[in-house]
Amino acid sequence: MVTRRFHDSDPAVDGLYSDLAEADLQPLWRQEGLLPRTPNRLTPFLWRWKTLRDLAGRSGELVGIDRGGDRRVLALAHPDLGGLPFATHTLWGAVQFLGGGELAPAHRHSPAALRLVLEGTGVWTLVNGDPIAMEPGDLVLTPGQTWHEHHNPGTEPMVWFDGLDLPLVRNLDAVFFEPGPDELSDYSPRPHSSSEQRFSVAGLVPVVDPVPVEPTGPGRFSPLLAYRWSAVDAALSQLIDAGGFGAATVRYSDPTSGRDVMPTLRAEMHRMLAGHQTPATRRVGSGIWLVFRGSGSTVVDGHAFSWSAGDILVTPSWSAVEHEAFEDSDLFLLSDEPVIEAAGLARTANEPTQGVREGGLAQASTAGS
Amino acid sequence: MVTRRFHDSDPAVDGLYSDLAEADLQPLWRQEGLLPRTPNRLTPFLWRWKTLRDLAGRSGELVGIDRGGDRRVLALAHPDLGGLPFATHTLWGAVQFLGGGELAPAHRHSPAALRLVLEGTGVWTLVNGDPIAMEPGDLVLTPGQTWHEHHNPGTEPMVWFDGLDLPLVRNLDAVFFEPGPDELSDYSPRPHSSSEQRFSVAGLVPVVDPVPVEPTGPGRFSPLLAYRWSAVDAALSQLIDAGGFGAATVRYSDPTSGRDVMPTLRAEMHRMLAGHQTPATRRVGSGIWLVFRGSGSTVVDGHAFSWSAGDILVTPSWSAVEHEAFEDSDLFLLSDEPVIEAAGLARTANEPTQGVREGGLAQASTAGS
Amino acid sequence: MVTRRFHDSDPAVDGLYSDLAEADLQPLWRQEGLLPRTPNRLTPFLWRWKTLRDLAGRSGELVGIDRGGDRRVLALAHPDLGGLPFATHTLWGAVQFLGGGELAPAHRHSPAALRLVLEGTGVWTLVNGDPIAMEPGDLVLTPGQTWHEHHNPGTEPMVWFDGLDLPLVRNLDAVFFEPGPDELSDYSPRPHSSSEQRFSVAGLVPVVDPVPVEPTGPGRFSPLLAYRWSAVDAALSQLIDAGGFGAATVRYSDPTSGRDVMPTLRAEMHRMLAGHQTPATRRVGSGIWLVFRGSGSTVVDGHAFSWSAGDILVTPSWSAVEHEAFEDSDLFLLSDEPVIEAAGLARTANEPTQGVREGGLAQASTAGS
Amino acid sequence: MVTRRFHDSDPAVDGLYSDLAEADLQPLWRQEGLLPRTPNRLTPFLWRWKTLRDLAGRSGELVGIDRGGDRRVLALAHPDLGGLPFATHTLWGAVQFLGGGELAPAHRHSPAALRLVLEGTGVWTLVNGDPIAMEPGDLVLTPGQTWHEHHNPGTEPMVWFDGLDLPLVRNLDAVFFEPGPDELSDYSPRPHSSSEQRFSVAGLVPVVDPVPVEPTGPGRFSPLLAYRWSAVDAALSQLIDAGGFGAATVRYSDPTSGRDVMPTLRAEMHRMLAGHQTPATRRVGSGIWLVFRGSGSTVVDGHAFSWSAGDILVTPSWSAVEHEAFEDSDLFLLSDEPVIEAAGLARTANEPTQGVREGGLAQASTAGS
Repeated sequence: MVTRRFHDSDPAVDGLYSDLAEADLQPLWRQEGLLPRTPNRLTPFLWRWKTLRDLAGRSGELVGIDRGGDRRVLALAHPDLGGLPFATHTLWGAVQFLGGGELAPAHRHSPAALRLVLEGTGVWTLVNGDPIAMEPGDLVLTPGQTWHEHHNPGTEPMVWFDGLDLPLVRNLDAVFFEPGPDELSDYSPRPHSSSEQRFSVAGLVPVVDPVPVEPTGPGRFSPLLAYRWSAVDAALSQLIDAGGFGAATVRYSDPTSGRDVMPTLRAEMHRMLAGHQTPATRRVGSGIWLVFRGSGSTVVDGHAFSWSAGDILVTPSWSAVEHEAFEDSDLFLLSDEPVIEAAGLARTANEPTQGVREGGLAQASTAGS
Repeated sequence: MVTRRFHDSDPAVDGLYSDLAEADLQPLWRQEGLLPRTPNRLTPFLWRWKTLRDLAGRSGELVGIDRGGDRRVLALAHPDLGGLPFATHTLWGAVQFLGGGELAPAHRHSPAALRLVLEGTGVWTLVNGDPIAMEPGDLVLTPGQTWHEHHNPGTEPMVWFDGLDLPLVRNLDAVFFEPGPDELSDYSPRPHSSSEQRFSVAGLVPVVDPVPVEPTGPGRFSPLLAYRWSAVDAALSQLIDAGGFGAATVRYSDPTSGRDVMPTLRAEMHRMLAGHQTPATRRVGSGIWLVFRGSGSTVVDGHAFSWSAGDILVTPSWSAVEHEAFEDSDLFLLSDEPVIEAAGLARTANEPTQGVREGGLAQASTAGS
Repeated sequence: MVTRRFHDSDPAVDGLYSDLAEADLQPLWRQEGLLPRTPNRLTPFLWRWKTLRDLAGRSGELVGIDRGGDRRVLALAHPDLGGLPFATHTLWGAVQFLGGGELAPAHRHSPAALRLVLEGTGVWTLVNGDPIAMEPGDLVLTPGQTWHEHHNPGTEPMVWFDGLDLPLVRNLDAVFFEPGPDELSDYSPRPHSSSEQRFSVAGLVPVVDPVPVEPTGPGRFSPLLAYRWSAVDAALSQLIDAGGFGAATVRYSDPTSGRDVMPTLRAEMHRMLAGHQTPATRRVGSGIWLVFRGSGSTVVDGHAFSWSAGDILVTPSWSAVEHEAFEDSDLFLLSDEPVIEAAGLARTANEPTQGVREGGLAQASTAGS
Repeated sequence: MVTRRFHDSDPAVDGLYSDLAEADLQPLWRQEGLLPRTPNRLTPFLWRWKTLRDLAGRSGELVGIDRGGDRRVLALAHPDLGGLPFATHTLWGAVQFLGGGELAPAHRHSPAALRLVLEGTGVWTLVNGDPIAMEPGDLVLTPGQTWHEHHNPGTEPMVWFDGLDLPLVRNLDAVFFEPGPDELSDYSPRPHSSSEQRFSVAGLVPVVDPVPVEPTGPGRFSPLLAYRWSAVDAALSQLIDAGGFGAATVRYSDPTSGRDVMPTLRAEMHRMLAGHQTPATRRVGSGIWLVFRGSGSTVVDGHAFSWSAGDILVTPSWSAVEHEAFEDSDLFLLSDEPVIEAAGLARTANEPTQGVREGGLAQASTAGS
């Protein structure tokens, strides 16, 4: 019997507790921690690129795609989550390794995924048959229920970051999965995916879409499936030029609506010039920060984490987060904020700065160090 | 170390697995059950009113409000959820007992709650100071971050059903809780709450609200906080009269927007006349069915559950559900569908009828039987 | 040639003007009044009930429905609109007279209409076949492209106010009209229309509508087609009771969305207790005020208009309007505000009070006086 | 007395008509044409570029900016509109001429405007102080209530097309106008306006806008104020490449919402390769087609209009329109469709093709021919 049985020195109350457990009921007045004063399920945590890259490479050598099923993926497993392979209670974060000449066959699933390329060149991801080139810094979407497969026709491996809403969708008990055919699709390499051809310019949307969006699943997502690093880089530079604050952030968005790229996931790129410090802020919802470029330090609830390119930092819901860039830096942020907002739970607060370097904060311990 | 360590007969692979665990990483290719073909986290489950009422009464005798903290609540604890006091992975369901002369002091929290009164009369719930009378069949909202307290000035107990989004909000790590003052508020009994005075008629909304909604929390919820049984009863009768199908359903909604009463919770009352049978349908998202009146049977994925007034049945995500009413019946449904829809995960399917009585289905085992 | 030809003393310029007119072009620099500092197309204007009722009655005696086409309607013709039968540049206002035993056959059109009953009893309006009883004070909708016909089975005439968006729809060149069959429809008198049966209670919406809305035209309108005076009266009383300001206003709205009853028309009922004075406010957009009950005075841009039951007052866009009630009064307001808002043109301003009685303002001249 | 007085051979009816006119009322049964079967206010009409350019040039020689007020504008005056300087009942179309070294000082107004550059180079339009370069094919927005001024620091004139919602806003009696200071603003030429720096890439929106939008008026409009011809050209080429139909259309849109650039105006660029023919379609709402490039023919309700670069064609509401391109062509379309849609009046229909060339249709007569 899984239902917990409480005990009491008063035999009548004790008997009540026995009968409650027998009836699969729980006395609220004996529960603890059910309603904390503030969100408290996670601590911040950081994974080092050196470790991630090393283990991804070893996996590439030792574990074939055939042996490893569809995908060669190392999932961030936050130690606070009881052994689940999840970065936070809502977000999946992972590093995927696709060796030269390797192929990952098609499947589809209701959880939504996105990729940010960290290393390598010349890989193609086919999304519902549309071939999308992958190069470092590119963000590629494979929304819920879209068929997707990966091809690495070159000789060098590619390593990318995978972000999914899988923990959330699993908590909602809404996971569907369907494998595709064993054989891979043919495709013709093209300079731009069909998706990018149709939404190539800010503020211009096709009136009759030559490739009408076929909603293969229930979701509502961006029809633009690739956001090129060169464009993101240029947009951030222009924003800094326009504003002059030493920092700028873009949100990847659906060009037809301005909404987030997926109904469950927000993706942003944060640029900070060397020396820039952000104020300490809290917000409801968890985040995965991926250092794409540069180095710096982040203080989360008083714990300092130094970081450089490739490191991945999880910031918990309602933690006080402040950054300082030591070099010009670009941090990719994946968060669950669209769901937090839709559920009416969004809230933010500003905190006094915690001091990134001056305070002599002990470096927080991290995985792989 | 919580991060799972896999083993392999190949020493190199085994070493990789050791290092992955050390680095808080998990090989996707060794995970099982992470991506099921369809949602599968729960089985259907039923709690009997006789058991619920008996244990609620005994709790009323044995456990004081002072002893039991703020609230005397028996939470449905689904055996599939590993001991958590949750009815489903997203929904809290419970029976609350407030004895004659008892008071439950004010608190507020980010999870949203609603009550459906099952037994008793003359209780007042104050929501942000607005006194709302509670009578059998009434639905009363205490949205996220609203202060609420309960007063039973009479001599007889009241029993009501509590529905909350607590499991969901906990999974989103967005729980805030704040106790109020120890002393209770004064109030003047009035025939209608201020909330009801302002939204008394369908299709008429105040242009200048005499009691402007003070958003005490981040949520967006109905400004109408009470839905009277007499009105619900009349609406269902009129719908059946208008359509003549032997069944009708109303969704409790925000009169200013038509949206669900809370961004995370959908509430509906389903009326079926004696003999009415519904088709078998699946949908993503879980539900709690509370039998308010009548008797009948429900088949969930081939398991038949007979029910009568006060029984509570949980139907899992993507289960095939069909009802048959033996008497004229009213079933209250609480579901997580607004979040499923906001996350782009809504999906439904029709199934061949499973046969409620003819098939000789064994009665499913239930708690408290 | 309609295109205006300007003249100039300089022969070269004069020749240019001649050629411009020949080419159907106009020099902007010779236009006057095209871009006024503020809206200025109309003056306020008032029609007296005594006149309206007298002429409606005489029309009833002298002009048969057969002779007068489908409808016996006296349209308010604002003298500022160059002879057009329009109350404002966007709104149609009229008094319609349907004698005892008379019938008005079905037609439909893209302009949307609503009626407020002023006198009589026992008339039925069929909207897409749904019979809706009409009694004094009731508001009945006949949205764009709905078939509608009127039956007066009794012996006494009915007089109602007609409000339409016809001038607006005509300015948008979007008028479609279609006559129905000559013979009238049969119907069974019922205490409630199907429309009212389906939306009888605030905050309760049918999940499966027994009479699914058949969008017969392109518009989006309230599925609730009748708003009873008794309900409006009760709602206003409750609002005043809840707030205690001596005044209250309800907006008639779509119970499924909270939006205006029609995409082009806003309808409100304003209650002022005796002695209540409103501040002077301006807003973009014109209005037709119909005095349903009571007496008082309104100052519009310094012109005082006294009014009593049945009088109809037009207030121009951006005019400063303030009311004072001498008796408990109910004023029905029809406005074009939904379109003003959709076009991004909404704007309001508060003005110093102009004084309704104290200032010794001369009574403005009115039609029919 | 403007209110029309009808006559009748029956003296009693005649007396009624006299009294109705006296009371500023109109008998509906004597109105004709008020409710046409279908929209019918306009005929199609075409202005030739040769004429437009010639007269604009002569105005530039003969009429100074000082003499002509703020702007040297030749407004299209549709002969069906009784002498008003309007292209359609809702849309303003004009050709504006700014000579070398000329300046047009700042003003603002509630009607929204946009410009498409036809000839010239090196002009700057300042919108709320943000300098926007103007080059051929560029679309520049000056939304409602934004301050705007034009500077031509070069030696050659610039000619552009002006599109406004002025007739609509005037019909809504919502025109506000405010002149700015006599002296012009200083500005620093920059390769990109601030507006373009902030929204430079499709699908990327700034999280903290360095130049927060200051809503200077009530409208809701695109924060991106310039759409470059090179980008539009590229987007159209990519769309044709993606789809291969020989035609493509982009809608200029707000990059933060996907909505139209202004709440009252839709702007599109239609590319047709040589030989492409469109089907004949009707829609509610009027349009101004500006030939930016190429040549071809359009049949409107059976009237054929041949066109080449710079010509401007008005298509009425509900007219059947079909195009054929003789050369690769780009047609800019300005329409009132956002308002038609907001008012719930949108409707379309397909018609049998009318034949552009084969049918031997007589060329319709046009202005300036």
